[in-house]
Amino acid sequence: MNIKEKALQLHEEHRGKLEVVSKVPLKTAEDLSVAYTPGVAEPCLRIKENPESVYKYTTKSNTVCVLSDGSAVLGLGNIGALAAMPVMEGKAILMKELAGIDSFPLCIDTQDPEEIIKVCKYIAPTFGAINLEDISAPRCVEIERRLIKELDIPVFHDDQHGTAIIVGAALINVCRLTGRSLSDMKFVISGTGAAGSSIAKHLKRLGAGKIYGYNKFGVVNNTDYEKYNFLIKELLDGGIYSSPERGEKELSEILVGADVFIGVSAPGLLNADMVKTMNNQPIIFAMANPVPEITPDEAKKGGAFIVGTGRSDYPNQINNCLAFPGIFRGALDAKATKINEEMKVAASYALANVLKDDELSREKIVPLFNDPRVVPAVSEAVKQKAIECGVYRK
Amino acid sequence: MNIKEKALQLHEEHRGKLEVVSKVPLKTAEDLSVAYTPGVAEPCLRIKENPESVYKYTTKSNTVCVLSDGSAVLGLGNIGALAAMPVMEGKAILMKELAGIDSFPLCIDTQDPEEIIKVCKYIAPTFGAINLEDISAPRCVEIERRLIKELDIPVFHDDQHGTAIIVGAALINVCRLTGRSLSDMKFVISGTGAAGSSIAKHLKRLGAGKIYGYNKFGVVNNTDYEKYNFLIKELLDGGIYSSPERGEKELSEILVGADVFIGVSAPGLLNADMVKTMNNQPIIFAMANPVPEITPDEAKKGGAFIVGTGRSDYPNQINNCLAFPGIFRGALDAKATKINEEMKVAASYALANVLKDDELSREKIVPLFNDPRVVPAVSEAVKQKAIECGVYRK
Repeated sequence: MNIKEKALQLHEEHRGKLEVVSKVPLKTAEDLSVAYTPGVAEPCLRIKENPESVYKYTTKSNTVCVLSDGSAVLGLGNIGALAAMPVMEGKAILMKELAGIDSFPLCIDTQDPEEIIKVCKYIAPTFGAINLEDISAPRCVEIERRLIKELDIPVFHDDQHGTAIIVGAALINVCRLTGRSLSDMKFVISGTGAAGSSIAKHLKRLGAGKIYGYNKFGVVNNTDYEKYNFLIKELLDGGIYSSPERGEKELSEILVGADVFIGVSAPGLLNADMVKTMNNQPIIFAMANPVPEITPDEAKKGGAFIVGTGRSDYPNQINNCLAFPGIFRGALDAKATKINEEMKVAASYALANVLKDDELSREKIVPLFNDPRVVPAVSEAVKQKAIECGVYRK
Repeated sequence: MNIKEKALQLHEEHRGKLEVVSKVPLKTAEDLSVAYTPGVAEPCLRIKENPESVYKYTTKSNTVCVLSDGSAVLGLGNIGALAAMPVMEGKAILMKELAGIDSFPLCIDTQDPEEIIKVCKYIAPTFGAINLEDISAPRCVEIERRLIKELDIPVFHDDQHGTAIIVGAALINVCRLTGRSLSDMKFVISGTGAAGSSIAKHLKRLGAGKIYGYNKFGVVNNTDYEKYNFLIKELLDGGIYSSPERGEKELSEILVGADVFIGVSAPGLLNADMVKTMNNQPIIFAMANPVPEITPDEAKKGGAFIVGTGRSDYPNQINNCLAFPGIFRGALDAKATKINEEMKVAASYALANVLKDDELSREKIVPLFNDPRVVPAVSEAVKQKAIECGVYRK
């Protein structure tokens, strides 16, 4: 049986992947009177008197909502709320398995940004944090930005920042391994959507040199400014994307002399000949799923020094499971009110440093998704940074 | 330690009462590729092709949302979304414990009926049914009515119908025990809110004789029509409430000659002298919580033949746990699109008939909440009725 058949069988056999269970006994009339009426009135009254005690008496303190409108699910596109359910259930159970977080998936039947914002604000009392998932760009950026401003619990769009944090960790480790510095490198990012834009911002925060964006209009540049959505404009205005000095338009042109190619775009955009034109020891993260921008074998033919993909069947898997469990664990542990930029940077360094010097290699630039050191390291760093920045509940 | 202290300790020790766990293994890279990416794309695509297959591949088929705005929680009133959390968590875990249903609590931060309706419609893709809970009357009636009309999953406001279904079962058993007939009885219901109005409608459907309502304005009557909210007007217009023939206004007046008193109102409204004026073998269901309209001892002094309360420390506990688990179980098992009036009537009869003739007594007019026969009996009746009425997915 192949993976597709196995997946269908697993989902059908269990009719979904998660269940909600009780942590307390409910067998006798006394159990009922303590966990439910009349006893339950007591914690209710305490929370009414002091709303912060909701963290003491309820599951809010350990609960993350995985919320999607189904508009950009995996590589499948806008498949809607119902069809997004298996992905969100998967994400929810990974939260529990990897980080002990109780997570519930909500697939919602609206794709209007204002309405999505409204739903998140209405359901917020129930949750310790909200993980936005698989919402298409650039709407996802507006939605997340508004919610971060308007809610007092962390809101984090994993498709934007999860990949960025892991790519950041991978590049920190590239520097450790090769003695190079991020500030001296030239980056080309293929894809300017949720993941691509967040990777660009995150790398800049980590001290990256020039970053060039590439999308369906060609290399992002000042001349084509009016063609772009607000997100790309912002990144150009802010100097996150550099506009090419010699007017390069094609991916093959801008790659000449580049140190790092980062793909969050489409299969097959890159070939060995293009890799050959890059700087010495080129670094390739080809993360289009399930088929990458270039296969590791082809990239190696072009002289790639380190290759990462989103796939588990090649070395250096850039797997979102490396970031979100520890990030939410740390945010919940701190009773954080936000996940800010400093916390994301701290997460990249903590994830990178899970690998000791003697573990680091061209084939192991990031830890495996189930390395038991990952969640403790990332969560502790995120928690400490939240406290340091004062974005937490005392 | 008393119940209040035990309840605080339990809630604090576990930081809430529910958790979300995986039903599938997630240890290895292959586990991940089957339950999450890339395998998860397969069930997503199947659901995209055929939306009904969401019942086959996801937890929707077994999941009920317990949703509240915190506007009428227990006897505590409008304590808001955060403070309502312990109650909704309690309800959710009872669904699992008693009926194997995965249930998740959502406490929402709006009390505007239109917005509550919107939230329910937006989150509906995730759930097999919605249990509205602790929403104040008469808003709860409008909200439920609209959602039943506009959604294709069952929506059931337990505060309205749960108590009604159990009181219905209790009265069916009163008739079995005493040889009386519902159509010959005179009923007085103190309380015309969510529970009171639904009890009146449900008893009428079961064939009850004259029903009189009582609230802060006195006995409900045609002369005071303009004072009432739309719900009471509807029940008067529909002949559910009778208007008193001799203009009785006081509870003590309308009780003269009544067969049954049903209280879903306030402590201490009834006394032994008033019970003495009722018909032979008076039946008293005094369900104000935690302090009933009259204590069983006081009611017995007045000659009450059968007394029920909402409390577990007296016989004949009218406990909502007797109804909602089986009702939702049956609705989910049938993939019902609604919980209609016929299904509620079937639930009352099924619940009543759990007790065999030789088990029935004045002290045991309904089963105990944890009687293992209750959920199978109620759920089967509800499921069969849904199929009979054609309100289910084939």
